[in-house]
Amino acid sequence: MIHATSRVLVADLRQHVGQTVSISGWVNTLRLQRKMQFIIVRDHTGMAQVTHKRGGDGDVIEPQLEHLTTESAVRITGRVVDNTVVKLGGLEIIPESVEVLNRAEAPLPIDELTGLEQRLDWRFLDVRRRPTAQLLFAVQTTLEQGMREYAYREGCTEMHTPKLMGTASESGAEVFKLGYFDRSAYLAQSPQFFKQMAIAAGIDRVFEIGPVFRAERSYTSRHATEFTGVDVELAWINGVEDVMAFEEQMLAHAIRKVADVHGEAIRDTYGIEVVVPETPFPRITMAEAQEILRAKGWDPEGLKEDLDPEGERGIAAHIREQTGHEFVFITHYPTSIRPFYHMRPVGQSDVTLSFDLLWKGLEVTTGAQREHRYDVLLKQAAEKGMSSEPLQDYLNCFRFGCPPHGGLGMGLGRVLMVMLGLDSIREATFLFRGPNRLTP
Amino acid sequence: MIHATSRVLVADLRQHVGQTVSISGWVNTLRLQRKMQFIIVRDHTGMAQVTHKRGGDGDVIEPQLEHLTTESAVRITGRVVDNTVVKLGGLEIIPESVEVLNRAEAPLPIDELTGLEQRLDWRFLDVRRRPTAQLLFAVQTTLEQGMREYAYREGCTEMHTPKLMGTASESGAEVFKLGYFDRSAYLAQSPQFFKQMAIAAGIDRVFEIGPVFRAERSYTSRHATEFTGVDVELAWINGVEDVMAFEEQMLAHAIRKVADVHGEAIRDTYGIEVVVPETPFPRITMAEAQEILRAKGWDPEGLKEDLDPEGERGIAAHIREQTGHEFVFITHYPTSIRPFYHMRPVGQSDVTLSFDLLWKGLEVTTGAQREHRYDVLLKQAAEKGMSSEPLQDYLNCFRFGCPPHGGLGMGLGRVLMVMLGLDSIREATFLFRGPNRLTP
Repeated sequence: MIHATSRVLVADLRQHVGQTVSISGWVNTLRLQRKMQFIIVRDHTGMAQVTHKRGGDGDVIEPQLEHLTTESAVRITGRVVDNTVVKLGGLEIIPESVEVLNRAEAPLPIDELTGLEQRLDWRFLDVRRRPTAQLLFAVQTTLEQGMREYAYREGCTEMHTPKLMGTASESGAEVFKLGYFDRSAYLAQSPQFFKQMAIAAGIDRVFEIGPVFRAERSYTSRHATEFTGVDVELAWINGVEDVMAFEEQMLAHAIRKVADVHGEAIRDTYGIEVVVPETPFPRITMAEAQEILRAKGWDPEGLKEDLDPEGERGIAAHIREQTGHEFVFITHYPTSIRPFYHMRPVGQSDVTLSFDLLWKGLEVTTGAQREHRYDVLLKQAAEKGMSSEPLQDYLNCFRFGCPPHGGLGMGLGRVLMVMLGLDSIREATFLFRGPNRLTP
Repeated sequence: MIHATSRVLVADLRQHVGQTVSISGWVNTLRLQRKMQFIIVRDHTGMAQVTHKRGGDGDVIEPQLEHLTTESAVRITGRVVDNTVVKLGGLEIIPESVEVLNRAEAPLPIDELTGLEQRLDWRFLDVRRRPTAQLLFAVQTTLEQGMREYAYREGCTEMHTPKLMGTASESGAEVFKLGYFDRSAYLAQSPQFFKQMAIAAGIDRVFEIGPVFRAERSYTSRHATEFTGVDVELAWINGVEDVMAFEEQMLAHAIRKVADVHGEAIRDTYGIEVVVPETPFPRITMAEAQEILRAKGWDPEGLKEDLDPEGERGIAAHIREQTGHEFVFITHYPTSIRPFYHMRPVGQSDVTLSFDLLWKGLEVTTGAQREHRYDVLLKQAAEKGMSSEPLQDYLNCFRFGCPPHGGLGMGLGRVLMVMLGLDSIREATFLFRGPNRLTP
């Protein structure tokens, strides 16, 4: 009996020429010819050719291959042989045993021609079989590593704030409601209030990566009902500029790390060049942005307060043309389209000390300095028609010495989507959730 | 007018003797005497004394101190002076300006004598004013850093699996249900099914830190309705031993990092010695554990299948006595008290290839090799009386080549609770959630 040796990764096979090793992976392709039988085995590091010559004395391999199917999980033990003719690394494995650890049913429910929605139904097969999807999660891991490296170095504390809330305080309309024993609870649509509580709790700089929930009937390529948010909140800031400086440094650091580790693979797989952005990123006020856009024919009726996707793309193209930069901060959003807790400049009640960050024309972040003065906050909440009673736990934070602070919330999927040039947030998420999709 | 300089942290004041600097923080204590006025200012790095001599010519400071209260957020600009008499680092600041950035109302709603529940009502003040709580979140950050370092090095991919599920598949009883547009959704009580989907998707090793939700009416010191889970899932394992080996290495690495960075502070603040555990951790089967415990009088009727908290403490004490080790893996849990997807040893249907990990007698992890064979999984689900229909998305993962795999789920709060000797998970969580607590 042949005993399996400990697993060797396909990428490391070259180190084992002449030895008998075991590889584990999936049957990528099967070519069972009359004289020769070829199995291409794929693991997460690459593909290898297994070559079997049929009908030798006491051929034990042939019966093992009889019921083999594409995508079956196999462990193959055999000798690694140098063969310059073989396309996959100039190596092949001459098998001594082929163990089927989990046979795949045939046919597979999806193939190369399957549309997006059906691919999402079988997302595990979709991700397993597409190199782009495999790379996506490796890039996600490195991107988060880069953001955490920067955040830790800058004194951030990693917090985990609750997703269950007692009141639908931030904005009742878009919140999921659930039964919570004898009452109701709500799913946090951002860690906003809780990260501000952490600031009030004396945490100097807050960092959190976690799920956020939006009960929005949005069917666009960039919205989801659940997505991963990257949240930062900074105490004792001198102004919103401190928040923007933090974000651009964090992104530049993280993108540089991605470019270093995966730049070549992203170029080969996605045909995209990851450009490490220079800092500072360009900044433009909303008023200036609108003036530039209107001069080019955007919003001819002059009715829009916010930038729509067309406006976002337009201003990003303008900035790119002017500066060559892929990023732009739009600042000073009108008070009317910002939440009550955004701070306003001294003596100006129509704009806020807030920003959005666009990357290649897509909004990836919203940020602001927060209003930390209790009386001003009460006034601003009342102006927005909000009742202070359900907000009381939040408002209490500002009654006992809350420092000036500000922060940002970034959509991780959106950053990946732009970075890799994906058409939809559905492709940038492992298991997408939308109004019509709650499975698998 | 005095202009504030850029912020200097209290811990760095020694480098600025003779200079005029600004510090930002909270008024820890106020002593306004007839001749001298003392303010102790606290930031996240330490405390500093601000010393003002009253009534000098044009004394601008005295009026600034008039309405000052404890816990107000202040920025103080002044000259750093060496003064060996001062207890706080032999330094004091002679103020040139005291800016009140946010005045605290007086009196504060909690003090040193306030009980736990009321402290939790005012958690931001509770955390801000107690050095133990401040240290807790620094330790949490380092602990996670250590776990991620190990996980990344070992080839893990960081995944974010959905918390919204279409069916209450794992165990209907303890799941929160919510309205999801025109239907219902459920909150994931663990990333279990989804991390297994990631394995089926060809992710070699899965790592996730995120919230998990349990709709349990448990009021113990170690249960919460929402807590932070650390989840790992490993593909192509040879057995459950691979999972335990991963966990003990990950914990040893992370605990060593905590001991290096915070060991002294934990000793000073909590009176606890962080012991870096030796690997491998002791292992004992459930059957052996019960035999040992029964010989000591536990469960005299011989009715218990599982270890109760008393049993967990008992076996941990026994192992500690025998080996000196704080950790112990209990293995081979009976099939009756494990979920249907735990694998069973060949030819043995009464036990599972599963484990719990106890630290100082508290369960901090459950893990197992998972059953990856579709037909066996169907049979085991049926045995547990589960309908396969709501499980279909999960079960599909095992029809198309799912490799052998196993993993673990760890409660982050429980690890912190044991590490720092806390009485309750409420103290190990920023904002605790339980059946009776959904605020703040």
